[in-house]
Amino acid sequence: MKTVVTLPELRAARLELAAPVGLAPTMGYLHAGHLSLVRQARRECASVVVSIFVNPTQFGPHEDLGSYPRDLARDLDLLRREDADLVWTPTLEIVYPPDFQTWVTVGQVAQPLEGSMRPGHFRGVATVVAKLFNAVQPHRAYFGQKDAQQAAVIRQMVKDLNFNLELVVCPTQREPDGLALSSRNVYLNPEERRAATALWRALSAAQKAYQQGQSQAERLREAMRAVLQAEPLANVEYVSCAEPDTMQEIEGRLEGRQALLSMAVKIGKTRLIDNLLIGG
Amino acid sequence: MKTVVTLPELRAARLELAAPVGLAPTMGYLHAGHLSLVRQARRECASVVVSIFVNPTQFGPHEDLGSYPRDLARDLDLLRREDADLVWTPTLEIVYPPDFQTWVTVGQVAQPLEGSMRPGHFRGVATVVAKLFNAVQPHRAYFGQKDAQQAAVIRQMVKDLNFNLELVVCPTQREPDGLALSSRNVYLNPEERRAATALWRALSAAQKAYQQGQSQAERLREAMRAVLQAEPLANVEYVSCAEPDTMQEIEGRLEGRQALLSMAVKIGKTRLIDNLLIGG
Repeated sequence: MKTVVTLPELRAARLELAAPVGLAPTMGYLHAGHLSLVRQARRECASVVVSIFVNPTQFGPHEDLGSYPRDLARDLDLLRREDADLVWTPTLEIVYPPDFQTWVTVGQVAQPLEGSMRPGHFRGVATVVAKLFNAVQPHRAYFGQKDAQQAAVIRQMVKDLNFNLELVVCPTQREPDGLALSSRNVYLNPEERRAATALWRALSAAQKAYQQGQSQAERLREAMRAVLQAEPLANVEYVSCAEPDTMQEIEGRLEGRQALLSMAVKIGKTRLIDNLLIGG
Repeated sequence: MKTVVTLPELRAARLELAAPVGLAPTMGYLHAGHLSLVRQARRECASVVVSIFVNPTQFGPHEDLGSYPRDLARDLDLLRREDADLVWTPTLEIVYPPDFQTWVTVGQVAQPLEGSMRPGHFRGVATVVAKLFNAVQPHRAYFGQKDAQQAAVIRQMVKDLNFNLELVVCPTQREPDGLALSSRNVYLNPEERRAATALWRALSAAQKAYQQGQSQAERLREAMRAVLQAEPLANVEYVSCAEPDTMQEIEGRLEGRQALLSMAVKIGKTRLIDNLLIGG
């Protein structure tokens, strides 16, 4: 496994990689969710590239950029065990030099939900992902279903800007009690960790209602809200039942369409998101 | 020479091209300026791709999109004679499908001069050029010095978004009397055509003043203004003496720096631009 920092080093190392090349972009502090992306890339591609960069432009001014967990030595150990070929760990100055001034913005699909709660977030995501795509030029790029709207935003960007690659969205990895794996789970104290299962319990309750014949989107949102409101440590930012490609809220019945159930919930000071696809 | 319309056709044809691949993006109605880009690409690259697309998103609402001259049959004849390998002529619906919603915006370098007179222009340019770059994946891309700020904006975008290609800026082609070649010159009636030489005369006057020892940027701008104001059919939008990479106006002396003299002038209803690099 080779580790590179600068863009010229990356370009030189990229030239040595056999095609097809798979890229798993990460912000480091890797957990089994990230590793499942790397593993799927390893199965499907001749070469596997992983980027590790905590991207400041996707954090809001009052978010957790400063405290975001980091452990590069551990990350590299884990990636070596997954047999990654190349790891790119650029510095802040490499990704955003002082005269940096170009932004990629995605429209409607980036506006509701996370886009509404985190202004500028998806501009930061789209811009850094466009940079990663151009720097690594992968044939396939691996993202997690955990960040469902992010995947939808990047899918739209790939289509709109003609990126020549296949987007692969991998299933959310969960703890045995259903909590979606996230680097931010380390922020939870034991009491909050127990309360955090409310997200998965809410998704499961709505899924069960759907399976038992409830197809009114608003009833499904209510089913999720009911579970979350019963959890004293949980503060709901949003619950959603939306069209998965456009992220537009569904009104009325699902009518056999696929729908994305999703939510953002604060457990104490920790903001968690989760989602589940139903129907279709 | 192969001509393709759809993106899948382009991708398939691109796979057959020998490296390095050169791209000359155009809006068609080709003149000797465009052909000089194609010719330079032909000399420097194993394969030459030309795109022809009148990009609506770089025109303002009151600009000349509707009347912009077009003659595809003639363009293809000319490109065949220049031995281009591949011509991409996408439709509006291919470049901007109904759900299109992703934009590339460049900051400071795109704000003054053309950016100030034509709001949204460089957003349209940067977006369509990003699309062309991703679709064609050229090793080198050829642009004209005639659109000097456009070249600076694209250079910034290439750097900021890590596009893996070399930007080649080719010299402005001129009529014998100095008028810079432009598809818009066909709008000029004979009287306006004579008046249009004022742009080159103004640039030449400022260059001569510089060569004779005048290095105050404001004096050079005045030298250009004086020539343009003496031409009754000319209406000056701006004259500029700016730093060529950032397009920031120079105040005080050039002090041996390179400077870009530039201007936008309306001759009757036709808006013309021209520029000249001095010093450095």
